[in-house]
Amino acid sequence: VDEEREQSAFREVMQPWIERFSAESNQIEFLSGLKSGFYATVLRLRSGSMLAMTTDGVGTKILIAREAQRYESVGIDCVANNVNDLICTGAEPLILLDYIATDRIEEHVMEELARGLYLGAELANVTIAGGEIAQVGAMLAPAEGGSPMFDLVGSALGAFPLSEQGTMRDVVDGSKVEPGDVIVGLPSSGLHSNGYSLARRALFEIGEATLDAIVPGSNETVVNELLEPTRIYVAAVSALWQHGIEPHGLVNISGGGLLNLGRMAADVCYTLDSLPVEPPIYSLIRDSGGIGLPVMYATFNMGVGFCVVVSEKQANRTLAILQDAGEDASVLGKVVNRPGKEVWIPALSLLGQGERFELST
Amino acid sequence: VDEEREQSAFREVMQPWIERFSAESNQIEFLSGLKSGFYATVLRLRSGSMLAMTTDGVGTKILIAREAQRYESVGIDCVANNVNDLICTGAEPLILLDYIATDRIEEHVMEELARGLYLGAELANVTIAGGEIAQVGAMLAPAEGGSPMFDLVGSALGAFPLSEQGTMRDVVDGSKVEPGDVIVGLPSSGLHSNGYSLARRALFEIGEATLDAIVPGSNETVVNELLEPTRIYVAAVSALWQHGIEPHGLVNISGGGLLNLGRMAADVCYTLDSLPVEPPIYSLIRDSGGIGLPVMYATFNMGVGFCVVVSEKQANRTLAILQDAGEDASVLGKVVNRPGKEVWIPALSLLGQGERFELST
Repeated sequence: VDEEREQSAFREVMQPWIERFSAESNQIEFLSGLKSGFYATVLRLRSGSMLAMTTDGVGTKILIAREAQRYESVGIDCVANNVNDLICTGAEPLILLDYIATDRIEEHVMEELARGLYLGAELANVTIAGGEIAQVGAMLAPAEGGSPMFDLVGSALGAFPLSEQGTMRDVVDGSKVEPGDVIVGLPSSGLHSNGYSLARRALFEIGEATLDAIVPGSNETVVNELLEPTRIYVAAVSALWQHGIEPHGLVNISGGGLLNLGRMAADVCYTLDSLPVEPPIYSLIRDSGGIGLPVMYATFNMGVGFCVVVSEKQANRTLAILQDAGEDASVLGKVVNRPGKEVWIPALSLLGQGERFELST
Repeated sequence: VDEEREQSAFREVMQPWIERFSAESNQIEFLSGLKSGFYATVLRLRSGSMLAMTTDGVGTKILIAREAQRYESVGIDCVANNVNDLICTGAEPLILLDYIATDRIEEHVMEELARGLYLGAELANVTIAGGEIAQVGAMLAPAEGGSPMFDLVGSALGAFPLSEQGTMRDVVDGSKVEPGDVIVGLPSSGLHSNGYSLARRALFEIGEATLDAIVPGSNETVVNELLEPTRIYVAAVSALWQHGIEPHGLVNISGGGLLNLGRMAADVCYTLDSLPVEPPIYSLIRDSGGIGLPVMYATFNMGVGFCVVVSEKQANRTLAILQDAGEDASVLGKVVNRPGKEVWIPALSLLGQGERFELST
């Protein structure tokens, strides 16, 4: 499972260097960086402004986009992956820069990518403020089938807004999460950008699915399911802040699936007893590839794209505000008073910690 | 000349979309973005803080690094390319995030890349605050020869420092450049990250050079010349600001070579009558590939890595401060009172504008 490793690889390899090079700047103070669970770098300038910055690509979903010659979706994803990470810190996204590595510049492909980026930007209320196109064909896989080969990476900047009283919003890192808190889930739109190496292997190498086949239990084709753009949760989370909800934790369910709950700072455990029914595309991936539930739940979002952890008292209002914002939000479970940052899914007997789920009987 | 197109490609393809999506945010004001010559996105937050952000990769220099199995240099370059762009706006670099796309994670390669990134960070006085490693082997060229194939991209954030009096430094965009101003050049260290597609074609496809050959007129091998890390000009430019010099223009000589002078806002022309002697690696590239001077000067830095444009009155102090900062700076020429943003090199009869030089007899 390639994607499982991606998340931790940066930390494993770079951590010694990050620690060696201490940030000795009189301009900034880091509020993240060395904390491994953070979704973005958070820093405070000497002027008092607090900023968050992140970088993320789209990964091998691009290969599906190439095969289908439909590029808008990965443009949206490039924005989504970055802003959905940024908002987990409490920051509001401001701008995004994009980097495209490609073997050649083909107008209609670039046009579709640009359209996707700008659709994503509108949904995320950010500006695409610049970027770079690098023609590095010799570094990219041969472009079979006539479409250019490319990679697409974004980097986004956000800021912590000042309240009317002039105070700065606290950085959200999950340290306020407490036993009894409620875990509210927001539906995903397909796989988002995660698990595509495993999905492609399961569907097309081990299994015999085709892009045009109908996904059993759905009215959609495989390609439509796989190219569903990643849902952008900026407006939903903004609505919470605007209505005075103070989220204890904000969790983008990206690579690692619901195990991402364990990235929050509080040393507690999570019981998820009301997960959504497995969406049909995951049943097909699981059946085609003969993949066990532990790997499925450690790789894919399984229908939940984003989690908000709030106090029990604020749970009903949180649900109402999210529903008003157009999200079909539901309570997935609750925070329990046990150390270890385990994620427990009783209906499936799955117990997870770190990067793995295991069957617990 | 692939690199010639890179610079303008983003603008050509993305500009219509940038214009369509106007930045309607009450949080920020853009001081760049729509101005095509800017080296970075410059924005002002509602809090008053002024920031600059940029993203850039290393390009096909990575292929030389792979062949030589020496990776530190491209790590340094990833930092250099971003911070050398940032400082052209007047901003001081703060942090850098890196993105590595790779077919596999090989410890010693990642270790060397990380070492390069951190050496670069020390020279640039920035912190590598985070990043992403994506395993996307199916999107990358087959890794012949045993070394992993990878791409390396950075994005950097800088801020405009407050003066002791609490005023913000002006954004530098070249609009203060005036006829009579002096163009001071700082030596490059080899090709930096620009023109490698042309260099590889000239040296190894058209010509018969090898990585281990000695470059005629030099004591260095081809591979050492090609893997020289990009010089980082942060300390030098910082020294100017600290000593009260107010640069009228700051120009990173990247893709496009000395034609980058024409990216400054002032509608003037530039006469360069004291360029450095052509470094030996360029003579070899030119001879091997049979490349004319117009293409050479529109692709490579030809020995000049960075330019500072100052008033004639401040020229001598500028030279002295740069020399104290360890730069072998020299006067290259001056700004002349003629519109058109032409770059004129009389000794070579080269007249340039936009992205091209032409022989002018």
